[in-house]
Amino acid sequence: MRRVFAEFLGTMILLTTVIGSGIMGETLSPQNPAIALLGNTIPTGAILYVLITTLGPVSGAHFNPAVTFSFWLRKEINGRTVLAYLPAQVIGGCLGVILANMMFDLDPILISEKTRASTGQTLSEIVATFGLIFTIFMGIKHAPKQVAALVGLYITAAYWFTASTSFANPAVTLARTLSDTFAGITPSSIFAFVAAQMIGSILAVLSLTLFTEAKTLPKE
Amino acid sequence: MRRVFAEFLGTMILLTTVIGSGIMGETLSPQNPAIALLGNTIPTGAILYVLITTLGPVSGAHFNPAVTFSFWLRKEINGRTVLAYLPAQVIGGCLGVILANMMFDLDPILISEKTRASTGQTLSEIVATFGLIFTIFMGIKHAPKQVAALVGLYITAAYWFTASTSFANPAVTLARTLSDTFAGITPSSIFAFVAAQMIGSILAVLSLTLFTEAKTLPKE
Amino acid sequence: MRRVFAEFLGTMILLTTVIGSGIMGETLSPQNPAIALLGNTIPTGAILYVLITTLGPVSGAHFNPAVTFSFWLRKEINGRTVLAYLPAQVIGGCLGVILANMMFDLDPILISEKTRASTGQTLSEIVATFGLIFTIFMGIKHAPKQVAALVGLYITAAYWFTASTSFANPAVTLARTLSDTFAGITPSSIFAFVAAQMIGSILAVLSLTLFTEAKTLPKE
Amino acid sequence: MRRVFAEFLGTMILLTTVIGSGIMGETLSPQNPAIALLGNTIPTGAILYVLITTLGPVSGAHFNPAVTFSFWLRKEINGRTVLAYLPAQVIGGCLGVILANMMFDLDPILISEKTRASTGQTLSEIVATFGLIFTIFMGIKHAPKQVAALVGLYITAAYWFTASTSFANPAVTLARTLSDTFAGITPSSIFAFVAAQMIGSILAVLSLTLFTEAKTLPKE
Repeated sequence: MRRVFAEFLGTMILLTTVIGSGIMGETLSPQNPAIALLGNTIPTGAILYVLITTLGPVSGAHFNPAVTFSFWLRKEINGRTVLAYLPAQVIGGCLGVILANMMFDLDPILISEKTRASTGQTLSEIVATFGLIFTIFMGIKHAPKQVAALVGLYITAAYWFTASTSFANPAVTLARTLSDTFAGITPSSIFAFVAAQMIGSILAVLSLTLFTEAKTLPKE
Repeated sequence: MRRVFAEFLGTMILLTTVIGSGIMGETLSPQNPAIALLGNTIPTGAILYVLITTLGPVSGAHFNPAVTFSFWLRKEINGRTVLAYLPAQVIGGCLGVILANMMFDLDPILISEKTRASTGQTLSEIVATFGLIFTIFMGIKHAPKQVAALVGLYITAAYWFTASTSFANPAVTLARTLSDTFAGITPSSIFAFVAAQMIGSILAVLSLTLFTEAKTLPKE
Repeated sequence: MRRVFAEFLGTMILLTTVIGSGIMGETLSPQNPAIALLGNTIPTGAILYVLITTLGPVSGAHFNPAVTFSFWLRKEINGRTVLAYLPAQVIGGCLGVILANMMFDLDPILISEKTRASTGQTLSEIVATFGLIFTIFMGIKHAPKQVAALVGLYITAAYWFTASTSFANPAVTLARTLSDTFAGITPSSIFAFVAAQMIGSILAVLSLTLFTEAKTLPKE
Repeated sequence: MRRVFAEFLGTMILLTTVIGSGIMGETLSPQNPAIALLGNTIPTGAILYVLITTLGPVSGAHFNPAVTFSFWLRKEINGRTVLAYLPAQVIGGCLGVILANMMFDLDPILISEKTRASTGQTLSEIVATFGLIFTIFMGIKHAPKQVAALVGLYITAAYWFTASTSFANPAVTLARTLSDTFAGITPSSIFAFVAAQMIGSILAVLSLTLFTEAKTLPKE
């Protein structure tokens, strides 16, 4: 129960940060969206480090159905955990967006009209989620104390190197339909994004098997 | 005594950084306040890491009446410490603002006219303080060597995800009335901010009890 | 084989990040290239930390023929490893650029027309590569657990302090001919850049011999 | 001898970074000096972490006559070390500026015409140097493995919270007369800056005696 609450709270604060900093950036820098994206990137990377460090020991700090799905694919968690985590993540994410909207004196629920449907953006979500899942499990294996830093820095990079600004998270994708800012996504773009995220997760879990036994660099 | 001086000095340098970098940002980027906020955020996060690492072993590095209040609510410090720390934090904070004003050749004491009174901003201070107190105590419990990094990165995020740019600190709130920059706050907005910060602290201390016994992730 | 695949995958993700964030920055901030460079720098530094931490234990995380060459000059790897790593790095890098182009819905292969041929830029590549090789080997010697952070932060600095924005990597140099953004380089500029990178590597390996026995600061 | 060479090389690379990134920022963002300052701050903080981590075990990584002077005031180094370090730092710093100028195809030696003579700027140098020396020695005492991070982050903050952008280093002050960029300083402003840096060092060494015995936070 405590673990489910940690997933709920963590995903909520994550989305509050993503959307809140998105609104702040867009409001302060309407003329230069690159600065708004910097002001969206740095807080997101920072809060991921904070949330994973503080809540990781409680729930594993997934905050992301694609991560929960990948742990399940690797048989590291059971189906009951999956069924408990997913709704907590989705509800937490949606409440996080609503909280961000309220802090900025906007209507609590807005529906995004930002279409994200290009081939490149769908490819971006496959790449972004592949990289996230790969980073998490290689980090758990080789540098377990640095997973929070690894995820924070991976997302910092992926916001910029993908055309979609790297959602890489189905709960985030759903929740962001409730924000009418540059960080939003219109409901009709959800399906392709979530499908791409699932594909990226599966590809990452498969490719991780190539590295499974490589615990150390062989000496020459 | 040494501990009280550490609280005084740390809060002073914190406010010198917050206000000094605020003046610098506003002066160099009048046309784009998002860049000024970036130039305010990065130094604040950086100096928090420095101050908590260097002065934490002396006084605990509160630099914040809401933090001192929360330690007292949790019965981790006694009333005498509270009464010694609070004035040191408030006086240190005010002197820090004065020092920043003087370094930039401004009048030492200016009274801010920046009103911060919207419902969203008050809600922002509840959320910001909740997150800060939650981060500190979860960090002390699960990652005590990383508390300085956690607080620095939490505030880095909170400057952007809250509509108030996250004061989250009654000493900071009082001291910032002495700065007539975008980092200031007019005296009439103090009461609601400090009340919100108290509410956020109490909510955080209450919610922390939910995680009290969860020392490790149960194995499946 | 696993090691060669790690070099391939790491160099690919590195180039996807360099070029993808370059396209993103240029698209969002055409009017201010300094912001585009910030949006190119931060992701590159971040992904280097991620890739070196996660793939370093597999292959050593060179991702760079100049690094592989320097390990060989120091007799820390043999010729067979060099011959296996170099093509993996070059092919991975080129595929990384193609992937970035595709994510942003550009033609997969573009040929850069950006000439980089000034004396200062060639000198820049000598300096940039010298510093990179020096940082890696001094880091391995004195702070082996921090090499990922050291390389990420070194490149963060070198993007700004060199006139060439610090390629410092022959595979990166070759791959970037395929990107028609501000991060590109025209084919005719390759030879001087790669020669400068070799010179920088040799100078670094030579100067490292000065520090070889200095394991600790002598006490006074 | 090796220690003196480390001071020379470290101060050279530090100045190459400060001036090179200054030229890059000013060239790319003439219209918004706050962005140029960000592009000057982040590389400087990053290279300080790199240089202190890699050369600290060799020479102590002072790179700064004010630091060397403070170690001597505290009787932690002898006069011979001071006499060997100071010229290495000054010569290294000057060569670093010349190298930066050459990488950007400027005349190797330019004389700055940027006057820095206000009362606020002199006060700024006292504050900046006080904070630097205080951070270094409190860091050595309480968190010796984090000194590189502490100094990098302190300077990141001090670039923004002081009106002088925090030189805090007499070798840097002298060397920067050779750069005709926003990072330069005209020769007639040297004396007041260096005097202020000495005063800041002395104040820091004095105030550190207050914390000398406070090794741990007393339990209540």
